[in-house]
Amino acid sequence: MISSREEVTRMILSSKVRKGIKWTQAAEATGLSKEFTTAGCLGQMTFDKPQAEAIGKLFELPDEAVAWLQIVPYKGSLPSAVPTDPLIYRWYEIVNVYGSTIKELIHEEFGDGIMSAIDFSMDIQREPDPKGDRVHVVLSGKFLPYKQY
Amino acid sequence: MISSREEVTRMILSSKVRKGIKWTQAAEATGLSKEFTTAGCLGQMTFDKPQAEAIGKLFELPDEAVAWLQIVPYKGSLPSAVPTDPLIYRWYEIVNVYGSTIKELIHEEFGDGIMSAIDFSMDIQREPDPKGDRVHVVLSGKFLPYKQY
Amino acid sequence: MISSREEVTRMILSSKVRKGIKWTQAAEATGLSKEFTTAGCLGQMTFDKPQAEAIGKLFELPDEAVAWLQIVPYKGSLPSAVPTDPLIYRWYEIVNVYGSTIKELIHEEFGDGIMSAIDFSMDIQREPDPKGDRVHVVLSGKFLPYKQY
Amino acid sequence: MISSREEVTRMILSSKVRKGIKWTQAAEATGLSKEFTTAGCLGQMTFDKPQAEAIGKLFELPDEAVAWLQIVPYKGSLPSAVPTDPLIYRWYEIVNVYGSTIKELIHEEFGDGIMSAIDFSMDIQREPDPKGDRVHVVLSGKFLPYKQY
Amino acid sequence: MISSREEVTRMILSSKVRKGIKWTQAAEATGLSKEFTTAGCLGQMTFDKPQAEAIGKLFELPDEAVAWLQIVPYKGSLPSAVPTDPLIYRWYEIVNVYGSTIKELIHEEFGDGIMSAIDFSMDIQREPDPKGDRVHVVLSGKFLPYKQY
Amino acid sequence: MISSREEVTRMILSSKVRKGIKWTQAAEATGLSKEFTTAGCLGQMTFDKPQAEAIGKLFELPDEAVAWLQIVPYKGSLPSAVPTDPLIYRWYEIVNVYGSTIKELIHEEFGDGIMSAIDFSMDIQREPDPKGDRVHVVLSGKFLPYKQY
Amino acid sequence: MISSREEVTRMILSSKVRKGIKWTQAAEATGLSKEFTTAGCLGQMTFDKPQAEAIGKLFELPDEAVAWLQIVPYKGSLPSAVPTDPLIYRWYEIVNVYGSTIKELIHEEFGDGIMSAIDFSMDIQREPDPKGDRVHVVLSGKFLPYKQY
Amino acid sequence: MISSREEVTRMILSSKVRKGIKWTQAAEATGLSKEFTTAGCLGQMTFDKPQAEAIGKLFELPDEAVAWLQIVPYKGSLPSAVPTDPLIYRWYEIVNVYGSTIKELIHEEFGDGIMSAIDFSMDIQREPDPKGDRVHVVLSGKFLPYKQY
Amino acid sequence: MISSREEVTRMILSSKVRKGIKWTQAAEATGLSKEFTTAGCLGQMTFDKPQAEAIGKLFELPDEAVAWLQIVPYKGSLPSAVPTDPLIYRWYEIVNVYGSTIKELIHEEFGDGIMSAIDFSMDIQREPDPKGDRVHVVLSGKFLPYKQY
Amino acid sequence: MISSREEVTRMILSSKVRKGIKWTQAAEATGLSKEFTTAGCLGQMTFDKPQAEAIGKLFELPDEAVAWLQIVPYKGSLPSAVPTDPLIYRWYEIVNVYGSTIKELIHEEFGDGIMSAIDFSMDIQREPDPKGDRVHVVLSGKFLPYKQY
Repeated sequence: MISSREEVTRMILSSKVRKGIKWTQAAEATGLSKEFTTAGCLGQMTFDKPQAEAIGKLFELPDEAVAWLQIVPYKGSLPSAVPTDPLIYRWYEIVNVYGSTIKELIHEEFGDGIMSAIDFSMDIQREPDPKGDRVHVVLSGKFLPYKQY
Repeated sequence: MISSREEVTRMILSSKVRKGIKWTQAAEATGLSKEFTTAGCLGQMTFDKPQAEAIGKLFELPDEAVAWLQIVPYKGSLPSAVPTDPLIYRWYEIVNVYGSTIKELIHEEFGDGIMSAIDFSMDIQREPDPKGDRVHVVLSGKFLPYKQY
Repeated sequence: MISSREEVTRMILSSKVRKGIKWTQAAEATGLSKEFTTAGCLGQMTFDKPQAEAIGKLFELPDEAVAWLQIVPYKGSLPSAVPTDPLIYRWYEIVNVYGSTIKELIHEEFGDGIMSAIDFSMDIQREPDPKGDRVHVVLSGKFLPYKQY
Repeated sequence: MISSREEVTRMILSSKVRKGIKWTQAAEATGLSKEFTTAGCLGQMTFDKPQAEAIGKLFELPDEAVAWLQIVPYKGSLPSAVPTDPLIYRWYEIVNVYGSTIKELIHEEFGDGIMSAIDFSMDIQREPDPKGDRVHVVLSGKFLPYKQY
Repeated sequence: MISSREEVTRMILSSKVRKGIKWTQAAEATGLSKEFTTAGCLGQMTFDKPQAEAIGKLFELPDEAVAWLQIVPYKGSLPSAVPTDPLIYRWYEIVNVYGSTIKELIHEEFGDGIMSAIDFSMDIQREPDPKGDRVHVVLSGKFLPYKQY
Repeated sequence: MISSREEVTRMILSSKVRKGIKWTQAAEATGLSKEFTTAGCLGQMTFDKPQAEAIGKLFELPDEAVAWLQIVPYKGSLPSAVPTDPLIYRWYEIVNVYGSTIKELIHEEFGDGIMSAIDFSMDIQREPDPKGDRVHVVLSGKFLPYKQY
Repeated sequence: MISSREEVTRMILSSKVRKGIKWTQAAEATGLSKEFTTAGCLGQMTFDKPQAEAIGKLFELPDEAVAWLQIVPYKGSLPSAVPTDPLIYRWYEIVNVYGSTIKELIHEEFGDGIMSAIDFSMDIQREPDPKGDRVHVVLSGKFLPYKQY
Repeated sequence: MISSREEVTRMILSSKVRKGIKWTQAAEATGLSKEFTTAGCLGQMTFDKPQAEAIGKLFELPDEAVAWLQIVPYKGSLPSAVPTDPLIYRWYEIVNVYGSTIKELIHEEFGDGIMSAIDFSMDIQREPDPKGDRVHVVLSGKFLPYKQY
Repeated sequence: MISSREEVTRMILSSKVRKGIKWTQAAEATGLSKEFTTAGCLGQMTFDKPQAEAIGKLFELPDEAVAWLQIVPYKGSLPSAVPTDPLIYRWYEIVNVYGSTIKELIHEEFGDGIMSAIDFSMDIQREPDPKGDRVHVVLSGKFLPYKQY
Repeated sequence: MISSREEVTRMILSSKVRKGIKWTQAAEATGLSKEFTTAGCLGQMTFDKPQAEAIGKLFELPDEAVAWLQIVPYKGSLPSAVPTDPLIYRWYEIVNVYGSTIKELIHEEFGDGIMSAIDFSMDIQREPDPKGDRVHVVLSGKFLPYKQY
């Protein structure tokens, strides 16, 4: 009996290590980007039926797990408000150090509103660099203005 | 008597509203990107002497404030661990929802290590889109591998 | 020298008590709803120039304060993550007790996504009732679907 | 041996996914609104005997679980004080950004007191809109005045 | 310029110590119970005009302070979620140790619902006892049932 | 193997629902008040041997559980510092809103010291009222003065 | 205008450093132990009139401050729940590491109840020791048994 | 398979209740004080081989548990930063209320430094008193001065 | 089925105690420093295949565990933000007390930037000393300057 | 009137920026290491009279400030439990990631006990390195064993 999406995430992670599957393989299976597919496998996004079945086949999941992959999960992938993992913390630090800057510059350009985290996409690439390769990330989010009423 | 960088930040913000200065004007004054310049004005980065003097002239700051702009500040621009402001929160949410995904994909590509938040740059642009303009952000951080010893 | 929007909020509150102004008067002055106008006066929303000048005139604010009313504020109106005030706590309690229900029902109807808090309006009315009048609130937020990519 | 209501909630969620049951079906079974029924199934409200039996039949629960559905639960459906799930967070954000506004307007209309979260009902509907459908929510809570003594 | 109710509380406390006023005198002045009157003076309840004027006269407050006493305050009288003061902590401890007991017994008697903290009164008296006098407290709150809908 | 009092509490709760036992029956079995008995069953108080055996018989507990009921437990019945359950929260709110008032009035009557939460009793009764029955609670705690030394 | 006991504490500390007064001198002035006197000067205990006047004379405080010293303060002398100061942290550590031990041994000797922190005294002395002098502390608190009712 | 010291603590507690063992018996078995022995059994201190074997024999522990008793544990015996149990809380309260006093008096006597919580012993005794027996505690910790370098 | 690195850590710890293995033996097995090897065994660092196999052989781990040792873990080895264990707390205290000093001195020498915790090594040695042996620790981290852009 | 050590720290920082003083100059003035001197200037350590006077002369402090420099301060130099400043955070991260490793290795070498943070010294140096200079830090703390009693 599966009673939460976290159990499915654990099944996928266990299967991934045991069988040496890569996230890019999972992305090929679903036909989606590697970013969305990984987020879905880690319990943050929802798959439709064919996508869930493809994931189920790749990771050899039971039918019940495939059904859960089509259910909208309770999102949030971190065990604490301030992440302890150094890689994830650096992102938190960017938000903490640059947060007020980001706010000022978006408002200067667009006025009052936000950059959507829903109508949003992310692309992570390796950027070769002679002084040491870089992580090159593109974030694209729709600007949503506050409307007066 | 100025005894902290926050006081200088408050002086700059007050002057900015009163005189209607834009951050892009500040960036022109320093010759740096608008992202770095704004972060510096908001007390997160350090200016060298000519840059600090240019900021001081633009915002009409006293000499003491110009000296403080050349001092490394205690960084962190948010008043709480989880930001309440909707625009900044969306960024925190991206880290929270996509954090484990970002970690998995960078490790899959690069192995164990982090994306630097120090040897780092950010570029924020308006991306015109018929369905509503988007905020287009490029983050570039050097990959730093954990080394075994 | 005004260096934050909170100072303007304090000026407005002080003037409101001293002069006995009502929020509905402020709404008439701006031509906006009472909900948006009050939120703006309390430092959560941004006014355009004529609206800010109308507020400035009503509450007898200095020019510098009128300029600040046109600046996008750092939002968040509560002094603690869990509000202590009984009226506001009841709303927090609704989110806490009904949060998972709201999530389930919106997802059942719309699929994965959120109800926007930006493209959003609120209307608060007195609903007469022989057993005791009720507070009748209508919330309307655009549904924003997560898109696959 | 069942020793908490959470176990019953997990049973219901597991059965719901496995059998593809919808909350509206559960509401039909109990004869109550979909909002109250879902909250009850998620461990926030109490059912009487016939309602509990209807839920038990629909989700194929053991008798012991049906008995627990009639026990008043320890309420609170969120795993952290500030919710991480984006859909639920938007509601928390509304309380955070508009909290002081709601307080001011209810007091201006009714005087000192609260809007009840107990003598309360909620109705969530899809509101078709050419610019994108909206979530339309009506909250109705009795106003309870503080009495002097 | 007074811009918050806390300033009025501080004025009252300062005046109380300087002039040696007792809370029972304040209660005589307002014609209300000592519990309600003290809570009002400490910024937790609202006075009507004659009551506010009586308080103003007793504590020699300026007119502006008397106006603020008629404004509904942001409630919550403790500086931290868990109080450090031993007397107040004992009450928190009663809630912590007996909380689940209180919940069980009220539900056993009344069914699902709450004891109101709004339609509520409190009476604190000295109870002489040869083994040491006792604090005798009567709390009376209306039972408010959750209603199904 | 039982290794904590919480396990015994869970056994009692499970048995209570399964067999439909009331707390007043448990109080009859122990010969103590319903308040103390319930607190003991919920893992907050200690029973002597005959009382523990009476509880064990009523709830059909194993001998090991009866032994644990005679062990002083680690007290505290709430899963978080600020309780989320609405019934228990109202009590927390009373402490938060009236805390400074309670402190002032007890000190005005008794001087510096506390109201004991140990030499303490509580009585919860239904108080019929035509406008809606009330929960009537009497708290009685010995006053303990701070002594100078 | 003095409006809180903390202001008096600050006055005492300022005067103490400026004039080089020792706590033992303050204890001689009040005729109380150095532990109680220091706690009183630091805003944790209440003095009677002659004691307050003696403190006032020693530290050259204004009359208003002397009145405040006779008012029961809001107790709690640490700025955070877990103290950062190494000397005070060691005491917190003793409670954290030995807390369960203290609980077990007092219950084994006395049964269920507490060691009072109100009917309590403390004595801190230097204990000469060739391997390095020791801090020798005696705590004495009345045992208060939980009574059944 | 035992993988943490907590499991051994649970085994000891379970055995203690089942067999009615007293901590003073455990202290006789190890030849150490009751304070150190109890702390060791509760997972806060380390035993050497003969001591661990004596504990193992008394509580009938498996060999693997005896091995774990000789491993330095991760210390800290409380489930939350501020303890909820009334007996332990009173100790926390002493640190909170008297913390600044303890600091001042130790520094006045010894200069800058701390009282060690490592080179430390504690002795808890019953002190008969006609007005009610007292808990008499002696703490002895080496003073460790900060050294300049 | 193993689904997290923590399970592998528990296996290693259990095996270590049962078989009496030392961390220096583990370091010999991997050919790495004792610091890196221990951190890897405790779930903080990643091993390559031969290293993981050597650890697996020494601690008699199943193949699945050996696979997990080659997966980058979610780092962070402490159960709470402020550690309760006295040995680890002393390190936290050094950061807390000396944090601002470290910051000032590194900036005075190097300008704005950080000392890397990734391109980092640590060496812990016993330093014999007639007054009591010392722990001698060398930390070496690359300085990473903030670059202007 | 100075009433806390923080005010002195602010005076020193203000003077340092205004006059361009370096910490190494302060260390020359006191004759102590740069680490101890800086910590003292930042309100974490205590100076004797000649050292305080040297600091006072260098930073042009009033006599009252010089007196405060000889008073043991309430230590702790960070504004939050988890530091937000990137340089200081890296140190916190080292404690978080390597904490359990440090604990294991010190216990393996020394047995149960701690590395003192009081009988402690720190030395921070620039270590030239062709791949980028490094920060080389030596920590030396006396090992303090837990003693059995």
